[in-house]
Amino acid sequence: MLNEIHGFQAAYARCIDDDRLEGWPEYFLPNAHYRVTTVDNHRRGLPAGLIWANSRAMLVDRITALREANIYERHSYRHLLGLPFVEPQADGTARAETPFMVARIMRDGGTELFVTGRYLDVFARDEAGALKLLERVVVCDSSRIDTLLAIPL
Amino acid sequence: MLNEIHGFQAAYARCIDDDRLEGWPEYFLPNAHYRVTTVDNHRRGLPAGLIWANSRAMLVDRITALREANIYERHSYRHLLGLPFVEPQADGTARAETPFMVARIMRDGGTELFVTGRYLDVFARDEAGALKLLERVVVCDSSRIDTLLAIPL
Amino acid sequence: MLNEIHGFQAAYARCIDDDRLEGWPEYFLPNAHYRVTTVDNHRRGLPAGLIWANSRAMLVDRITALREANIYERHSYRHLLGLPFVEPQADGTARAETPFMVARIMRDGGTELFVTGRYLDVFARDEAGALKLLERVVVCDSSRIDTLLAIPL
Repeated sequence: MLNEIHGFQAAYARCIDDDRLEGWPEYFLPNAHYRVTTVDNHRRGLPAGLIWANSRAMLVDRITALREANIYERHSYRHLLGLPFVEPQADGTARAETPFMVARIMRDGGTELFVTGRYLDVFARDEAGALKLLERVVVCDSSRIDTLLAIPL
Repeated sequence: MLNEIHGFQAAYARCIDDDRLEGWPEYFLPNAHYRVTTVDNHRRGLPAGLIWANSRAMLVDRITALREANIYERHSYRHLLGLPFVEPQADGTARAETPFMVARIMRDGGTELFVTGRYLDVFARDEAGALKLLERVVVCDSSRIDTLLAIPL
Repeated sequence: MLNEIHGFQAAYARCIDDDRLEGWPEYFLPNAHYRVTTVDNHRRGLPAGLIWANSRAMLVDRITALREANIYERHSYRHLLGLPFVEPQADGTARAETPFMVARIMRDGGTELFVTGRYLDVFARDEAGALKLLERVVVCDSSRIDTLLAIPL
């Protein structure tokens, strides 16, 4: 499953960085949980996040809103992911932790290190046997990202 | 071939970052195409790039010019590459896409995130069976890199 | 051994980034050599480094001092490692070279690309057969990092 998760993570990042955001919810199961939070909130066990969704439908809505707001025209991302840790679970799912850096490229050409952190994932299979996210908690290292966040991480 | 491409990419980056630029053209076939372009130009299908070469000999010339201009003394690079996507082709070649971040380290010690992007590659084998680049298109995410570019990406 | 070294590098980075610094010396053999140096010093063959230790006990002492100075409260790191080059040696050890970028996240939320470089490693096994570092030389690309360095790299 390790190689499969490698491929999944690379495809996920590429989907966002190529601005194919409509394809992004497809990486999740229909009942998936997705949230973006900070390391401080995560340590304190606070459930609230910068982004919070408990279904794939909510992720679809988010992309629709982003497209209407035309935010995607203003900047792009470049994800670079480290090697994932994978812990297979007895119930057939797998937990994984993957560090990341994301650079943001503004329309005027400026490039900056935007956010760093790690994905805390639970992977499971859909009915067709394809690997999907049952849960992704994006734990950002910095607590100063809320006002900037637009495109999903 | 996946593991072989992993090794190739790591060796390529190391060759540049270690300032062994004379070895850089050896990663290409004699008739290779290499160009550096921006995501905007690439989307519009514009062939012109920041750097453009259609033979290994042109890459050799470029390194010679760089050495004479003594540019390599002024800064160094650090490449960090993500995992490549590999699509084997029916004709025995392979297409691969690999995201990258490059930091630039100036002689005064300043370090900055210089450029991000992805390699769009076609890999093929030379007569001895060694894996080489038949084509590398370096698509930079930012459109504001032309005047800064010196060392190859 | 390649997959094992992949896993080792990821675990090492995670240990530091998760602020589990007391676990950091466990990645080394008791008689290990660890030093942090700059590319300039490394090229000249100068042994002096920004950090220098020739035993695991010295690494333990370093962490104790860090904790007492309370430095770990002020910032955190995020390591992103590239794929390692591995050269197995005839004596059962392995040499490896792994590029890295480290971002530093300050308590006020600022994120910056802190340092780039590469690990020059010698891996060996302890009595229980576990993979450990016999030597790690951290070669930083920039020469301007000495006064900033606190948490181990």
